[in-house]
Amino acid sequence: MKLNYMSLALELAKKGKGKVNPNPMVGAVIVKNNKVIGQGYHEEYGKNHAEINALNNSIEDVEGATLYVTLEPCCHYGKTPPCVDKIIESKISKVVIASKDPNPLVSGNGIKKLIEAGVEVIVGILDKENKKLNEVFMKYIKLKKPFIIMKSAMSLDGKIATYGGESKWISSEESRKNVHKLRNEVMAILVGVNTIIKDDPELTCRLKNSKNPIRIVVDSSLRIPINSKVVNQINKSKTIIVTTTKANKDKINSLENKGVKVIISKLKDNRVDLEDMMIKLGKLKIDSILLEGGSSLNFSALSKNLVDKIQVYIAPKLIGGETSKTPIGGSGIEMLKNVFKVKDMTFESIGEDVLIQGYVERR
Amino acid sequence: MKLNYMSLALELAKKGKGKVNPNPMVGAVIVKNNKVIGQGYHEEYGKNHAEINALNNSIEDVEGATLYVTLEPCCHYGKTPPCVDKIIESKISKVVIASKDPNPLVSGNGIKKLIEAGVEVIVGILDKENKKLNEVFMKYIKLKKPFIIMKSAMSLDGKIATYGGESKWISSEESRKNVHKLRNEVMAILVGVNTIIKDDPELTCRLKNSKNPIRIVVDSSLRIPINSKVVNQINKSKTIIVTTTKANKDKINSLENKGVKVIISKLKDNRVDLEDMMIKLGKLKIDSILLEGGSSLNFSALSKNLVDKIQVYIAPKLIGGETSKTPIGGSGIEMLKNVFKVKDMTFESIGEDVLIQGYVERR
Repeated sequence: MKLNYMSLALELAKKGKGKVNPNPMVGAVIVKNNKVIGQGYHEEYGKNHAEINALNNSIEDVEGATLYVTLEPCCHYGKTPPCVDKIIESKISKVVIASKDPNPLVSGNGIKKLIEAGVEVIVGILDKENKKLNEVFMKYIKLKKPFIIMKSAMSLDGKIATYGGESKWISSEESRKNVHKLRNEVMAILVGVNTIIKDDPELTCRLKNSKNPIRIVVDSSLRIPINSKVVNQINKSKTIIVTTTKANKDKINSLENKGVKVIISKLKDNRVDLEDMMIKLGKLKIDSILLEGGSSLNFSALSKNLVDKIQVYIAPKLIGGETSKTPIGGSGIEMLKNVFKVKDMTFESIGEDVLIQGYVERR
Repeated sequence: MKLNYMSLALELAKKGKGKVNPNPMVGAVIVKNNKVIGQGYHEEYGKNHAEINALNNSIEDVEGATLYVTLEPCCHYGKTPPCVDKIIESKISKVVIASKDPNPLVSGNGIKKLIEAGVEVIVGILDKENKKLNEVFMKYIKLKKPFIIMKSAMSLDGKIATYGGESKWISSEESRKNVHKLRNEVMAILVGVNTIIKDDPELTCRLKNSKNPIRIVVDSSLRIPINSKVVNQINKSKTIIVTTTKANKDKINSLENKGVKVIISKLKDNRVDLEDMMIKLGKLKIDSILLEGGSSLNFSALSKNLVDKIQVYIAPKLIGGETSKTPIGGSGIEMLKNVFKVKDMTFESIGEDVLIQGYVERR
């Protein structure tokens, strides 16, 4: 039964996907006499926590009831008052928790306070599942750097474009729709300036009732065309351009006048220092980034150990070509023993394509 | 029940895999009073057909019984006498057949002869499954050209080697074992001479109780090192080198003296004309070829419309590199609308890798 109620709480948590960042997705279920009497989830950043919503939604008196919640209740004042106090006040007698709060400042404190108040506490039910659901939060809260998903669409022979550069579209409509779902869930999308110069994309989410991610462009020498869509359609979403001291000051001014945020990162090898960039983006509360290439930016991010997850859509096509671009270019790794490993690889069919996903092993 | 008995016949047929080429795999089951009284399959090229084995193995009198057989019984003298006569003689009263014989010389004749003798005939049960099992035979019998399976092992970012050329091993042990299973099943294995020069492989099957495929090397200018393994380990398996009139006559003699078969193909673009080569190999009764690259030979074969099936092992690794080799190189296809399509794509896990397979759509 514990598993069932916690599964329900996890399902509720998922409803907050894309709306609560950089907070975690949290769900809560209140059970009394084997009956669910209250449910809730964290619906939006800055709004009520899941436990409070479940308490508020309860259809019976919660005294003596059990609360299932996917994350350790908070005991500190943030955007909202501490949930632990509310729980104790409500006379809930037992709290079952999936995961302890990974935030080093508060981890364990909520549990301690509950126990001190005489509430029975069980921790660890569906902990792994919850951590996977909240993988973005779990990284961000500890390192204050965004969780990065590298996404590619390639042919079965590993090409992201023909030798002539044609890349629209290699993957199926269903795969592209799936990418738009992801754009709706992450906080930002990251591309290299060459993608802007070549394709002038909007980098928005095309799904109904969705939000657009912040658009981030890496542009060491500030080559971005001043008339490009991400610069001019600022009403659709924020645009951040990350450049270096090499950038022309007047151009920075023009871009800022159009409402674009320009960040000057440190230089590394005469280009944007990607590690410094991630720290700066983390400070802007960007917890998750969808990295949509090109192939040399992908290699740079990978070789700097910045990529957490990889998602490759493989289309039933054969393109060929010694010079055709592949998902990850750059100089590449020389020895097989040194290549990056992907763990927990999964695969599924999306439309006529196969989607392979996995996590990049840390060095 | 028909499906169950035919499934059993198909299972029996599979036991002939790798041993009956260029004949089809065929299985047969004899049923009387809802009981299987006889089973058999075509065990080896030149030996008894499946029907005869089933008749010979029957534990009861087959008069009035039903024969389930995966391929239309033959009515002509080949290596063995016609099966149709034997069936009629044995007083089998009903014959259920998966597929008609695709050999245009005999297709339908066996069925006709059975019906004329008063035997009831049903055709088409598990026809599709049988045709897939016998995809090699189905092509070879009609076109007299080998069925070609292109096999590659690549990283999740589409590389078959590092930029330095290291390729041993990208895929897992389980995947490599799977390839050796395939080597045991096909009649020949095909590589470009560069693979011989670079790796000097044996190109044998490493499994116990297996047979080695014939080794075919495409070598337009006869650059093969005279001391390479495929030239000197002729006791392990036959080696065929396909070259052109550009080849040095003395070198041809030396190779032939070592027991290597040298074929002179037509020239096309100053290289081996792959289409002509396939016709010549077909005449040598080579019905199936595993094409194991390199990446430019793969593109040549693909662009000449010679590849029937593709098998790609994808390892959980990221290699990167703009110049690293990919499964299919060459010049490549310029426009996306002209790329080769893969149909009936399937995927499965093999060890830690994902194996994607499909059929290349004919142009």
